Amino acid sequence: MASDLGGGSLLLAWQLKNKRVLIVGGGDVASGRIESVLVADAFITIICPASGLHPLTRKYIDSSDRITYHDRLFAGSEDLVDVDMVLTAVDDVEKSREICDMCRALRIPVNVADIPPSCDFYFGSQIRDGPLQIMISTNGQSPKLANIIRKRIERSLPANAGDAIEKVGELRSQLKERAPGVGGDLGKRRMRWMIDVCTSWEMDELALLDDEMMQKLLDEGWENNLVPKLEEVGGKRVQAPAGSGGFSSQLLLPAIGFIAGATSMALVLLAPRR
Amino acid sequence: MASDLGGGSLLLAWQLKNKRVLIVGGGDVASGRIESVLVADAFITIICPASGLHPLTRKYIDSSDRITYHDRLFAGSEDLVDVDMVLTAVDDVEKSREICDMCRALRIPVNVADIPPSCDFYFGSQIRDGPLQIMISTNGQSPKLANIIRKRIERSLPANAGDAIEKVGELRSQLKERAPGVGGDLGKRRMRWMIDVCTSWEMDELALLDDEMMQKLLDEGWENNLVPKLEEVGGKRVQAPAGSGGFSSQLLLPAIGFIAGATSMALVLLAPRR
Repeated sequence: MASDLGGGSLLLAWQLKNKRVLIVGGGDVASGRIESVLVADAFITIICPASGLHPLTRKYIDSSDRITYHDRLFAGSEDLVDVDMVLTAVDDVEKSREICDMCRALRIPVNVADIPPSCDFYFGSQIRDGPLQIMISTNGQSPKLANIIRKRIERSLPANAGDAIEKVGELRSQLKERAPGVGGDLGKRRMRWMIDVCTSWEMDELALLDDEMMQKLLDEGWENNLVPKLEEVGGKRVQAPAGSGGFSSQLLLPAIGFIAGATSMALVLLAPRR
Repeated sequence: MASDLGGGSLLLAWQLKNKRVLIVGGGDVASGRIESVLVADAFITIICPASGLHPLTRKYIDSSDRITYHDRLFAGSEDLVDVDMVLTAVDDVEKSREICDMCRALRIPVNVADIPPSCDFYFGSQIRDGPLQIMISTNGQSPKLANIIRKRIERSLPANAGDAIEKVGELRSQLKERAPGVGGDLGKRRMRWMIDVCTSWEMDELALLDDEMMQKLLDEGWENNLVPKLEEVGGKRVQAPAGSGGFSSQLLLPAIGFIAGATSMALVLLAPRR
């Protein structure tokens, strides 16, 4: 069983809130790293001579109060004090390997762009929609296919998935305030009810939840151990459900076929016989 | 710009090949962790009294030579020697927090199930297809919606995405052997050509690549700086392209509509008049 599993990575959502990340280098690759790290609410130190800064890196440095910038080269282990993660993206392969060794000695997780053996972790192709984050990794086999797959997934995602997740997260916190405690029967009932809500409502219905509707959902739903419909808590759909595809894709094609078939048969049968 | 980014995690593909992962606990949650970690080719130590083992955990222990099992409780910092990552999934909240503190003092990345502040990283809902790995994270807002989204993505993925990635990975290695070197103009040409192959061929065509076809693709394509078609390197499509949906979904419904329409009209027109 186990032998079929291997060959992959452990995909993780690393927590960096208020942690310190050192980025060595400021070019194209580094600018992408900066964005990924800012997403996770880290503090960033960038070390790179000003001549090597990509315009986007420069923009981040100018606009974010979470970034400290040093216009110089990496100086040595003193640059690693109190650092929680190191990302390097410089052309100097020797220097990169040296930084990697120092990080490993200090047990600081490190990624050296383009040198896989010097990476404790890889980055993947990513999608972000509010609280929803998706990563596509091909384990280094094909970054281009990762990108193609990312675009396909982006197109297939429900338009309001991020909103729906945010609303469900709020509902969940409100429910926890109303029925607090970790584990036990209450915890199980809470989890069961949240699952019922998520499976009974469409994604675009969940995205419509406002404070008043949440209140009603908890008062009339949770308290009576049932899941009211959107309309029963005062909500109103503004469009066809994303999941069902509406009339256009489900009925249009067979309808056109039906009309075409009926017309053809009528033409055949009503045609004047010669 | 930066202020709109925050609130998320840094999604990573963590490398664990031949690293040592300690899992404290052996229940339901732990069994899921074991699978994720085996995917990444780690060595695992499981510490858990036999009475607490989930049948699946027991199955992994019996079948994998990468797992060392100790039938006892966590003993203290001596259990953390030479450990690269710690995952705990036990009911004892106090004990869990203690283990977390020890790990942080030793700078060992740690995840304590169900206690977010004691987690350096979270897990997400995952998809695996050979070298392709996808993680869906809702940053703790709604595991259920993460699951629902995972299932939707699974349905929307091209059937042979994993195979296609594997073949492209092989082609890339062969190209690197033929035209070696890091960076520079050759590196750029190599990358450009690989991108051209990935965008010119459909995913299901890439999945068909065998050694002979790769050879031809490199001889006739790379050497002449062009991308031959599948048929030109001896390949033959066995089915409609995955992306286009094939006959079934594109033509079946209108065809049924056509037949139904024709039949109805025939019945109307041929019915005996009374």
